[in-house]
Amino acid sequence: MTATAALLEKLRLGLPPAAIVTDPAAIAPHLEEWRGRGVGATPFLLQPGTVDEVALIVRLCAEAGVAITPQGGNTGLVGGQTPQGEVLLSLKRMNRIRAIDPTADVMTVEAGAILANVHNAAQTVGRRFPLSLGSQGSATIGGLISTNAGGVHVLRFGMMRELVLGIEAVMPDGQIFNGLRSLRKDNTGYDLKQLFIGAEGSLGVVTAATLRLFPRPVGHLVAMVALETPEAALQLLQRARDETGALAAFEIMNRTSVKLTAALPGVRVPFDPPPPWLALLEFENAVAEGFRDSIETMLAGAIEASIAQDATIAESEKAAADFWSLRDLMSAGHRTVKTPQVSHDTSTPVSAVPAFLKNAGAAVERLSPGARIVAFGHAGDGNIHYTAIAATTDSPFPAEQISAAVHDAAYALGGSISAEHGIGVFRRTELVRFKDPVALTTMRAVKHALDPKNIMNPRVLFEPV
Amino acid sequence: MTATAALLEKLRLGLPPAAIVTDPAAIAPHLEEWRGRGVGATPFLLQPGTVDEVALIVRLCAEAGVAITPQGGNTGLVGGQTPQGEVLLSLKRMNRIRAIDPTADVMTVEAGAILANVHNAAQTVGRRFPLSLGSQGSATIGGLISTNAGGVHVLRFGMMRELVLGIEAVMPDGQIFNGLRSLRKDNTGYDLKQLFIGAEGSLGVVTAATLRLFPRPVGHLVAMVALETPEAALQLLQRARDETGALAAFEIMNRTSVKLTAALPGVRVPFDPPPPWLALLEFENAVAEGFRDSIETMLAGAIEASIAQDATIAESEKAAADFWSLRDLMSAGHRTVKTPQVSHDTSTPVSAVPAFLKNAGAAVERLSPGARIVAFGHAGDGNIHYTAIAATTDSPFPAEQISAAVHDAAYALGGSISAEHGIGVFRRTELVRFKDPVALTTMRAVKHALDPKNIMNPRVLFEPV
Repeated sequence: MTATAALLEKLRLGLPPAAIVTDPAAIAPHLEEWRGRGVGATPFLLQPGTVDEVALIVRLCAEAGVAITPQGGNTGLVGGQTPQGEVLLSLKRMNRIRAIDPTADVMTVEAGAILANVHNAAQTVGRRFPLSLGSQGSATIGGLISTNAGGVHVLRFGMMRELVLGIEAVMPDGQIFNGLRSLRKDNTGYDLKQLFIGAEGSLGVVTAATLRLFPRPVGHLVAMVALETPEAALQLLQRARDETGALAAFEIMNRTSVKLTAALPGVRVPFDPPPPWLALLEFENAVAEGFRDSIETMLAGAIEASIAQDATIAESEKAAADFWSLRDLMSAGHRTVKTPQVSHDTSTPVSAVPAFLKNAGAAVERLSPGARIVAFGHAGDGNIHYTAIAATTDSPFPAEQISAAVHDAAYALGGSISAEHGIGVFRRTELVRFKDPVALTTMRAVKHALDPKNIMNPRVLFEPV
Repeated sequence: MTATAALLEKLRLGLPPAAIVTDPAAIAPHLEEWRGRGVGATPFLLQPGTVDEVALIVRLCAEAGVAITPQGGNTGLVGGQTPQGEVLLSLKRMNRIRAIDPTADVMTVEAGAILANVHNAAQTVGRRFPLSLGSQGSATIGGLISTNAGGVHVLRFGMMRELVLGIEAVMPDGQIFNGLRSLRKDNTGYDLKQLFIGAEGSLGVVTAATLRLFPRPVGHLVAMVALETPEAALQLLQRARDETGALAAFEIMNRTSVKLTAALPGVRVPFDPPPPWLALLEFENAVAEGFRDSIETMLAGAIEASIAQDATIAESEKAAADFWSLRDLMSAGHRTVKTPQVSHDTSTPVSAVPAFLKNAGAAVERLSPGARIVAFGHAGDGNIHYTAIAATTDSPFPAEQISAAVHDAAYALGGSISAEHGIGVFRRTELVRFKDPVALTTMRAVKHALDPKNIMNPRVLFEPV
């Protein structure tokens, strides 16, 4: 009997039937990378319903020396959720809201809870969980924690890391780490939850978390602004932030990205023709009085100072949703292009975004003359989603060299090769080129200390030694 | 020759004379716990001026097997900065502001920079570093990071952890970890800086950090509110937060704490007689228009709803400073009392503060009948500074039992025995009673992985094995 067959027998003794899936047809959707970038393989799928079941699974796997790949909503962008021979551990059945305390502004949810459901649960008690991103209808809290997800409201609320007060996790030996706290302040030793956030499942299995809630905004306003240059976007960002104090999102989109997305059905662009750069600004406030005035004054000042070419405010929530829809469909917009393309998720200091766009653009042009650049994203955080697209199917398009050059351009400005998507499997080779060697050594030391058998998602983050 | 004498000889070869202090008179101030709770001992004091000098020191100490206690402004409250035989490493000479970028809203400073100087440096470029606490004239950035300092603006800006974008540190083997980044988003592996924040010097020496800056507020207003109960404080907190969106600090003080502090020269209390509870509310906003109106409306509504008994707004910056001065002098107020006392720094979920005060008060009364309670602090964060004071010098006052009971009361409500002061040496025995055993085991595993020789501040956090 193989090690995995023996393991499966032991698992059957301790788990309810619903927790074990061996039917290939039922497993298949969990193995497909959702953009078609590869298919995984696993001996079987486990779907525990409780933290004790997760603990049993991890302990038995550790004893058997069989590795585990945890999976949430299977919406990851760097291949970290796809097993290649590991046991697949889906947290989807652990999806309860365990508790909500609107007075303390906290909610405790299980790892498999879907983000949109968490939004709804907060809303039912008059509060709000502010993390929002395109995949919120599928992405789970456990996955969002394990990848330290970002999204469009990082500018105001921070990434997932800033929104988590406590974590329950199963350690690589099967012990349960009970770190579910609802505390704003707790200086009692190393803040271990920080290790699990962004660890991509490599240090244990996150099974539940206590999340911060916030008041629901009273004032809400979305504007689109036409801009000539990224430098102008930076100036607008500063004014919008400093003069209104209510900026919740600041996204930019270049003309190529807007044109490609505008070709999708139902998408509208408020300026015709589209300007070189379009900025989407979202404002929120607890007080309605004076809210719109301060934004209109700021926008008028930006036009007066020749920072902005034009600006338009969404006059209804429907119009605001239309503005957001242009932004949300950006990825779909350029995925339809048939010529080769390669995408990146870089960040730089906010002040270096214009230099990054200039330098990366020049590097791409050298390697693939005439290539189109799709650049959009969270300019308020210095995070640009940057895709190079070959001019024609015959154009030279050395994808690896292009990626290396884009990453070099970010790094030279103090930037990062992964702002919010993570490293996973797809970026682990590139990581070695850029990460501080002492940091890499220390990461390996932490991994070895917590997971000496290398059981937990062993293919992410680290190049095989 | 002893190990430390041999080490000193090697250090003299590599360090400039100014970096080595052996004169007992010059060392003495570094060894005194500032509230008189013990005196330390050290073979010599090292005062490096550069990160390379720190790296040399740590490497030579590690090779010699001699332990190190790092020290910042010597303002710690849990004994973590006081050596007992370890080499004392003061970061005070590393106090440069290395860079400020007001566009990216970041500043890179060395560990020895004093918080008040960091405030001033931010102000010179029109920005603001929001962490503020009583010891800001002495406390250093390195110490504030190593203890994950809190203070009065946590409610709006978070603790030190939320304000640090990057860290440079010397690892326990003398290697330099170069994690100085100015990025809002960087998902490239474990966020190692989180380990150094709050590690109390036990995982390495923080030598520099990149800090987040913020816009300076346009609207600023401080109010004092008279309250009957902690429950009313909680209701006021919710209204102030939700209805103004501008709440930056929410502090409460009980009548005993106010009366003791009012006895200090120059301190004034806006209500006579002092109410059972006094709340200090600070509001900040980027927009002046409508700012004061929204606060006055909120306060009037709280009085109308019988939540608040009375309220007064500081009508000048001088008056606002007077309000803050009552709060800032709270510790000095009860330190003058001559009967025995014992202090705590507990937190609970914000919604549990009233229950904590009730339960802790009952426990203290059982153990020391007639004892006075000084309770004040960051109610908006659930963090109460809680001191029990014996009624007379003859009263029974079992200090250890009282502390245990206060800690039990916090823990029973999901709370913490150290909200912002840390564990250090003074609280490490208590920690074992409350910390999740898996968390403690994991903390030890991390400590051993990064500092296998147990060189770095070996007496903090962990009970000797």
